[in-house]
Amino acid sequence: MDASSVAIGDDPPALRAACRSGALGGITAGLAMGRVQANLVILPQALAFEFLLFCQRNPKPCPIVDVTDIGDPEPARIAPGADLRTDLPRYRIWRDGVLDGEATDISDLWRDDFVGFLIGCSFTFENALRAAGLPLRHIERGSNVPMYVTDIACAPAGRFAGPMVVSMRPVPRRRTVTAVEITGDYPRAHGAPVHVGDPAAIGIGDLDRPDFGDAVPVDADEVPMFWACGVTPQAVIMNSRPDIAITHAPGHMFIADLADQELRG
Amino acid sequence: MDASSVAIGDDPPALRAACRSGALGGITAGLAMGRVQANLVILPQALAFEFLLFCQRNPKPCPIVDVTDIGDPEPARIAPGADLRTDLPRYRIWRDGVLDGEATDISDLWRDDFVGFLIGCSFTFENALRAAGLPLRHIERGSNVPMYVTDIACAPAGRFAGPMVVSMRPVPRRRTVTAVEITGDYPRAHGAPVHVGDPAAIGIGDLDRPDFGDAVPVDADEVPMFWACGVTPQAVIMNSRPDIAITHAPGHMFIADLADQELRG
Repeated sequence: MDASSVAIGDDPPALRAACRSGALGGITAGLAMGRVQANLVILPQALAFEFLLFCQRNPKPCPIVDVTDIGDPEPARIAPGADLRTDLPRYRIWRDGVLDGEATDISDLWRDDFVGFLIGCSFTFENALRAAGLPLRHIERGSNVPMYVTDIACAPAGRFAGPMVVSMRPVPRRRTVTAVEITGDYPRAHGAPVHVGDPAAIGIGDLDRPDFGDAVPVDADEVPMFWACGVTPQAVIMNSRPDIAITHAPGHMFIADLADQELRG
Repeated sequence: MDASSVAIGDDPPALRAACRSGALGGITAGLAMGRVQANLVILPQALAFEFLLFCQRNPKPCPIVDVTDIGDPEPARIAPGADLRTDLPRYRIWRDGVLDGEATDISDLWRDDFVGFLIGCSFTFENALRAAGLPLRHIERGSNVPMYVTDIACAPAGRFAGPMVVSMRPVPRRRTVTAVEITGDYPRAHGAPVHVGDPAAIGIGDLDRPDFGDAVPVDADEVPMFWACGVTPQAVIMNSRPDIAITHAPGHMFIADLADQELRG
């Protein structure tokens, strides 16, 4: 967690203003608990139908919480007045499927044909997990949640195809059902896990080497649980090579005004 | 209900083959109970993003159950092998927002840039209503369900905007909660009703004069209940005037292989 965030408080507009001013540039796990956090994908309109179709066919990793009008950077339905060009702590710029750099402001890259897709994030249900007394190891450690590319194939749509990415949280063995039930209540924030237990069963070789985020220890009395992750589009973008795409940097989410309860089923 | 349908049976592939051969040209209410029925909208690719976005912003009238790949008439995820050009009993062709005619086969109109949208239909939950002993007046009478244009505005998306259309079923006064609970279990088939009671409260002037389908009597001990309807895109098309659009004729639905249980929440 970014140390400066503590002083900023937990008000979504204030947190977004802190992103805009540069005061907040770190990960957002643990911030604004009880509010919706969202993954971001920005694509040109020419790819927008196929990407929205990809999300429709893959609701587990890509539950849509808002889509902006063509050329409009305001996600008006979940955060009126917000600006997708400045209001995330960190962005990634992808050209031809290759990561071309990161930025904290993408105003100079914005185009009239850009469409912004906001995709539900598992940080949204962490408040409910915490309320049930479940550990959130990455928040305890002040690190980013570990994320892994799996061998689970997404349903393709036009040019978009690729593997599912998951986030991992260690859960005490006796509490796995509780974790399934709680998160299953939030289908628009990835819902119930896609896998519980053996990482190899979904193609993950080594929990200590996540593809995104930071490794966390799994204790002897704990089981790793895996939830579909909104970083999936970034693996898909690598695969599908659009001319340009802009995403959030993993763990550096958009913080909406919307309450987490709004993403319950 | 089309009299010929009784001989065809309730097997979705057989019912679609009957549409293709011309043996089935009537409404589909009461057919293939327990299977998903779907509304159809076909639009050119150039309008596909904005229409899919319209559906995403209006999940109550327009819950997506499948979208075909560009130029492909097969809704492969809900009815492998089916053909949207021939497998519905009746189509409507719209040019510049005006109804230009009906057809029972649209093969000659199909284009390489067409995209087919299959939208959940309230016929899907009628089996569950019947199992709970609730009346289905239009099926009892062998008529089409009555549908009305309301004064409830849909959330616009690009060129698509317009009023919500609803279907109406009379429900015994003491059973309205049961009807809400049962249909609320099917969010991808319109889910819980949008209104119960006074038709004027949602801009319906006269129950005896539906905008689509056939009027049915509401008995003294019954309350009219209104569910969002997949004919909504037809009202939106009238408003938004795309060059060409093809839809099902109201009540003449696509019958999928998918079981109704698949559209439960």
